[in-house]
Amino acid sequence: MELYFKKISVIGLGLIGTSILHAINSKKKIGVTTYAYDVNPKHRKIVLGMKIATFVCDEIHEAIKDADLVILAVPVGSMKSVAISIAPSLKESAIVTDTGSTKNSVINDVSSFIPKNVNFIPSHPLAGTEYSGPEAGFSSLFVNRYWLIICDKKTDQTKKLAKFFENLGSTVETVSAEYHDKILAITSHLPHLIAYTIVGTASDLEADLKNDVIKFSASGFRDFTRIAASDPIMWRDIFLNNSEAVLEMLQRFNEDLSDLQKAIRKREGEKLHSFFSRTRSIRKKIIEAGQN
Amino acid sequence: MELYFKKISVIGLGLIGTSILHAINSKKKIGVTTYAYDVNPKHRKIVLGMKIATFVCDEIHEAIKDADLVILAVPVGSMKSVAISIAPSLKESAIVTDTGSTKNSVINDVSSFIPKNVNFIPSHPLAGTEYSGPEAGFSSLFVNRYWLIICDKKTDQTKKLAKFFENLGSTVETVSAEYHDKILAITSHLPHLIAYTIVGTASDLEADLKNDVIKFSASGFRDFTRIAASDPIMWRDIFLNNSEAVLEMLQRFNEDLSDLQKAIRKREGEKLHSFFSRTRSIRKKIIEAGQN
Repeated sequence: MELYFKKISVIGLGLIGTSILHAINSKKKIGVTTYAYDVNPKHRKIVLGMKIATFVCDEIHEAIKDADLVILAVPVGSMKSVAISIAPSLKESAIVTDTGSTKNSVINDVSSFIPKNVNFIPSHPLAGTEYSGPEAGFSSLFVNRYWLIICDKKTDQTKKLAKFFENLGSTVETVSAEYHDKILAITSHLPHLIAYTIVGTASDLEADLKNDVIKFSASGFRDFTRIAASDPIMWRDIFLNNSEAVLEMLQRFNEDLSDLQKAIRKREGEKLHSFFSRTRSIRKKIIEAGQN
Repeated sequence: MELYFKKISVIGLGLIGTSILHAINSKKKIGVTTYAYDVNPKHRKIVLGMKIATFVCDEIHEAIKDADLVILAVPVGSMKSVAISIAPSLKESAIVTDTGSTKNSVINDVSSFIPKNVNFIPSHPLAGTEYSGPEAGFSSLFVNRYWLIICDKKTDQTKKLAKFFENLGSTVETVSAEYHDKILAITSHLPHLIAYTIVGTASDLEADLKNDVIKFSASGFRDFTRIAASDPIMWRDIFLNNSEAVLEMLQRFNEDLSDLQKAIRKREGEKLHSFFSRTRSIRKKIIEAGQN
């Protein structure tokens, strides 16, 4: 299986970055060289010990200067500074992509710094776990998951990048940045915000109640705590960088929650029942779509 | 392994009721007779075909008249009518328990109808899945899950019931009804309400966006749809019967969500980061408590 790129650089060695390296290693990769860099020396040392990259570089420009594909897998709040760092050393005709969860902000932060003779093609793998850091990565993270490429029209470069993601196991679709940010606001960002909130609410309860919340955590809450265990820096950056779409979805959510709150207070059983029946059908569609 | 009761009646043949029958069947049960009843003839027919009860009865009084343990595994909104139906036929010294998710309401609905010579001991297994109906049950549902018994002081009867639940795999603890309802409001009822809400919000989006919400449902949302696929009648009844505690927790949640909303709008990165870091530690405690 061809990887379409000979020299691949991964900047940012967290869950996503190391999973990309693991996934590349799981393929026949004759003639492929990988370069790894993270601003945190501890992460570089761990990845060096894991032997999942051809070179772990101590300087960011060393990691990208020969690469024909550069993947930025850093929190979206760091994209701008990384783009400024790498811009002078990028190879002519290289492709630069990123894996950030907000796309308008990354395009705003990165595009203007990328030289004209380099292709910047933003992307986002819809894959992750609640674990973070270089030891959290694994080779099958992207298998059967969507990897969205942000572009208005397909080019030879976007097609080549799509092939590369497909070889890591992903299904590739192209969408606009605006559309991406709206879809992610409701499917990922708002659910995380709500999970963080309810776990916070529980942790503010009186001490005896709080201890038993942990002890007796039933399925609903347990799922929320898993979601709310995700990387705090990554999520801070997401909410700051997709605030418009998140706040819009949050407003809709608040209106719906007020409706249900009123239905409970007024004891409107029929309304509650019909609402809960409707949501059940959405789950069925997701299972049918193979995304369960 | 002794089951402590010779004649056991299960009223309500959904996920919980059939799981109890499966669990009893998975034990050595020499001399144990089980009686099963559901108001829905289709459910009775399915359970008859599954051969998990000694007798599947077509009349509720047939199912309980000889039983020394009667387990009411019906939605909490049906507890009162079931209690009225069974009261005249209950055997002297029998124990009646229930598996409802709200305890104050069940005690109010059931206690006054139970004859003086019968012991009513409310209980609640903290176990479940998003599936419902007689085919959803399985024998290990209660293994390593808490089963809460509601009582002020332990008696021979509560101890005997606890031994029975322990033999099904559960860890038994005793709590008061008020405390139970508060703990469940934050660990189970509010998370479900929120999951139902956000899935409803998503299903109200414009058609094209909605279809892609299903298609691209990332981990957060996918988990919420699973929670929001639970039995609508059961959950309608829970919210109507634990409304006070749910509305109290919902108010706290709303205040916390407003705070985060404001932090996003005002771009207070430090506040978001510290909030998200705090919730992460709660997850750690749950994993340490073995409830993950």
